[in-house]
Amino acid sequence: MAQKPSIPKGTRDFGQEEMAARNYIFDTIRSVYRSYGYVQIETPAMENLSTLLGKYGDEGDKLLFRILNSGDSFSGVDFESFRGEDGNVNSQKLSMKVCEKGLRYDLTVPFARYVVQHQNEIAFPFRRFQIQPVWRADRPQKGRYREFYQCDADVIGSRSQLNELELVQIVDRVFTKFGINVAIKINNRKVLTGLAEIAGFPDKVTDITVAIDKIDKIGLEAVEAEMLDRGLSEQAVAVIEPVLKLEGTTEEKIAVMRGLMQGNSASGIVSEAGLLGLDELTELFGYIETAGVGQKVEMDLSLARGLNYYTGAIFEVKALDYSIGSICGGGRYDNLTGIFGLPGMSGVGISFGADRIYDVLKGLDKFPKNIAGSATVLFANMDASVIPYIVPVVKHLREAGVACELYPDQAKLRKQFDYADKKGIPFVSINGGDEASAGSVNFKNLSTGEQKVFRKDDIDGIMSFLAV
Amino acid sequence: MAQKPSIPKGTRDFGQEEMAARNYIFDTIRSVYRSYGYVQIETPAMENLSTLLGKYGDEGDKLLFRILNSGDSFSGVDFESFRGEDGNVNSQKLSMKVCEKGLRYDLTVPFARYVVQHQNEIAFPFRRFQIQPVWRADRPQKGRYREFYQCDADVIGSRSQLNELELVQIVDRVFTKFGINVAIKINNRKVLTGLAEIAGFPDKVTDITVAIDKIDKIGLEAVEAEMLDRGLSEQAVAVIEPVLKLEGTTEEKIAVMRGLMQGNSASGIVSEAGLLGLDELTELFGYIETAGVGQKVEMDLSLARGLNYYTGAIFEVKALDYSIGSICGGGRYDNLTGIFGLPGMSGVGISFGADRIYDVLKGLDKFPKNIAGSATVLFANMDASVIPYIVPVVKHLREAGVACELYPDQAKLRKQFDYADKKGIPFVSINGGDEASAGSVNFKNLSTGEQKVFRKDDIDGIMSFLAV
Repeated sequence: MAQKPSIPKGTRDFGQEEMAARNYIFDTIRSVYRSYGYVQIETPAMENLSTLLGKYGDEGDKLLFRILNSGDSFSGVDFESFRGEDGNVNSQKLSMKVCEKGLRYDLTVPFARYVVQHQNEIAFPFRRFQIQPVWRADRPQKGRYREFYQCDADVIGSRSQLNELELVQIVDRVFTKFGINVAIKINNRKVLTGLAEIAGFPDKVTDITVAIDKIDKIGLEAVEAEMLDRGLSEQAVAVIEPVLKLEGTTEEKIAVMRGLMQGNSASGIVSEAGLLGLDELTELFGYIETAGVGQKVEMDLSLARGLNYYTGAIFEVKALDYSIGSICGGGRYDNLTGIFGLPGMSGVGISFGADRIYDVLKGLDKFPKNIAGSATVLFANMDASVIPYIVPVVKHLREAGVACELYPDQAKLRKQFDYADKKGIPFVSINGGDEASAGSVNFKNLSTGEQKVFRKDDIDGIMSFLAV
Repeated sequence: MAQKPSIPKGTRDFGQEEMAARNYIFDTIRSVYRSYGYVQIETPAMENLSTLLGKYGDEGDKLLFRILNSGDSFSGVDFESFRGEDGNVNSQKLSMKVCEKGLRYDLTVPFARYVVQHQNEIAFPFRRFQIQPVWRADRPQKGRYREFYQCDADVIGSRSQLNELELVQIVDRVFTKFGINVAIKINNRKVLTGLAEIAGFPDKVTDITVAIDKIDKIGLEAVEAEMLDRGLSEQAVAVIEPVLKLEGTTEEKIAVMRGLMQGNSASGIVSEAGLLGLDELTELFGYIETAGVGQKVEMDLSLARGLNYYTGAIFEVKALDYSIGSICGGGRYDNLTGIFGLPGMSGVGISFGADRIYDVLKGLDKFPKNIAGSATVLFANMDASVIPYIVPVVKHLREAGVACELYPDQAKLRKQFDYADKKGIPFVSINGGDEASAGSVNFKNLSTGEQKVFRKDDIDGIMSFLAV
């Protein structure tokens, strides 16, 4: 019985067109990363589970794909010892016994592991990029996959805001190359810390940020009500109110915030963290002004991604003309490598979401037309006696840089044209005994119908007709 | 306690230089595949175990990395039912219960699965290439890894020997681009079948081939003795003897073989399979003659790779100036997709061994010098007041295609030069207040010591000095 073939849920095959589109995305991002001196690394798909566990929270641990130890993996396992009081086997514990390895869940933890493991070979500040798949045992749904690529760039070993500037420039350049208009939103974790401090609720950073985030949707009063619901006092809400009413340029907003952090709020509390965060934002926006960033850049005090993780700048990028979540994000972290034994390394990074960028480019019809990856010419195969004439001609053209296919079978011409059509090959070359005796080659443009004959060694003329 | 970071045995991290070298290998192979109209596809790292099991023999099944089902994977498993009479748990059977997925073991089986699954979208003959990692739980040793890349090209849906020709041309072109001299050895499975048939031992194809393979090393008599050891009769050995003494051109060898297959051997047996194989070889070598292949191509009747798998042409490539195993191989198969329900599809493919090619290029010092992937210029950072002058200059250069790094911290110049040196950045640009006032930019070539000043907008002059 033949098996009916399928692939695991949440995974995908990529055919010719999707590959071409995805390569366009990866190549564009890669070329911009390179122009900033970021160098590519790759890490193994499998990491030791000890490297991965505990880095993504309890929920993340459950989403790790674990790899069964090879060989006689269950030999000598005392299954009964893994039963709890309810009589059920504890799958998590048993899996630790029979699985030592897991699939990469993101590129950040392997990067941290890499930096610590190779610290003596690395020239710091270390600018690296990495474009590889990651795997998560999430419930598959529209737009969420169990295998997907991440495209990360990080620089580690430097605290300078020039690094933040360069990441903003990279984002600007990448989306400008894509022809996508975006808003690059910037915040700073220390300002959020400061806000919670001057409100007198230093442990409610998340509650305050989540509430502020809704200001455009639900308005001032509802946000204030939500903060009270979340356990803030009336006085704390009064401290935060001026932040909700912030208006003007980034400079003006920073000035207002600086006043609040200096003790001019209703609480009178001074926040050193908040002031430091505002200094960083001031420096970064100064650099951005100097550099001339074409895409929209804005300070967004409600931006809070990865709060537990980031310690300085936070970035998020949204497409302006297409409704989808964040298409790029990142930020600064101060202790990524500490858990692997290398404390005190500050770094900052960004990650492009290739799948969402694909959706935006497709939705806005922004993919270039010439990326399909098909050959330029199909040489038809009609007459075995002409093959010895055609083979060297095709070879010559390929070496000149023209991708050519020679149809391998002597099929009906109709079939060969259909093949060219289905594969999106724009030119067909049909040559018989006449062309062979004359030393000429015939090309037909399938979309215009235009046909032209060249001497077989007139490579320049041929290339020009094929518009290669 | 900080963890001491490591990676699973048999896996590797690839740093800047190895990545650059590997990208050079992949890019070269990819560009040649593309010039022949092969299109790229990708399949998931994880396949259903039902797709993979039984395709690589019992040994292969054991070498598959299995992925533990996510969620409560051991819930409800009756472990006792997996115990054999010896009281031990059968790990293979139990793993089938708790693992539905495995990691890709090669690119061929996923390709067969892909062709069957997408047969209605594909234009046949289907020329595809695929460059992705595969995973095998082999015992790691020098040159053998548990994660490694394969670079396969296959065409499926055509029986024409023109496909074989094109694969030979691809091999020729790739190794010529690499600057590696190779011998491309060609055989045909049907000729080996024929040889066993005329010897009167049709089930001893492998024994005969293995013995023939040693002719250069151990000589005629020893090979004949080995064939007797392997159960062939004196008469069978007498039939094979002329094959061991074959000399002359490929044409002459084929003529002798044709005589034997036609019944002119000591046994008088005629082999239709053998004659068909010789016809195919004749056609293929005729095409190769026409096409003009630069690398050495030779018929090698002892070549037998993947006997159980191939049904027609067999290829193997060896480096002539570096001692290592086969660096590329392949052949024709007639029933790859049959197991997934699509019989009668003939295909032929090749696979480049990236790790061995890396070793050969490194051993022969054939890697191009300019592939390191570092930036071209490091802009030093000495004076905060000059940064607003430098940032737009660097941006301009990057957009012109020059990869630049701006050192992010105001470190000692010595430290910044060391950084450029360690990263292999060939030029350093040091600019202070004087350059800023004059609108000029200073470049120093670190290897020659030559220093030159340009107007900041003289991009052509700068590019020419940097030899970009």
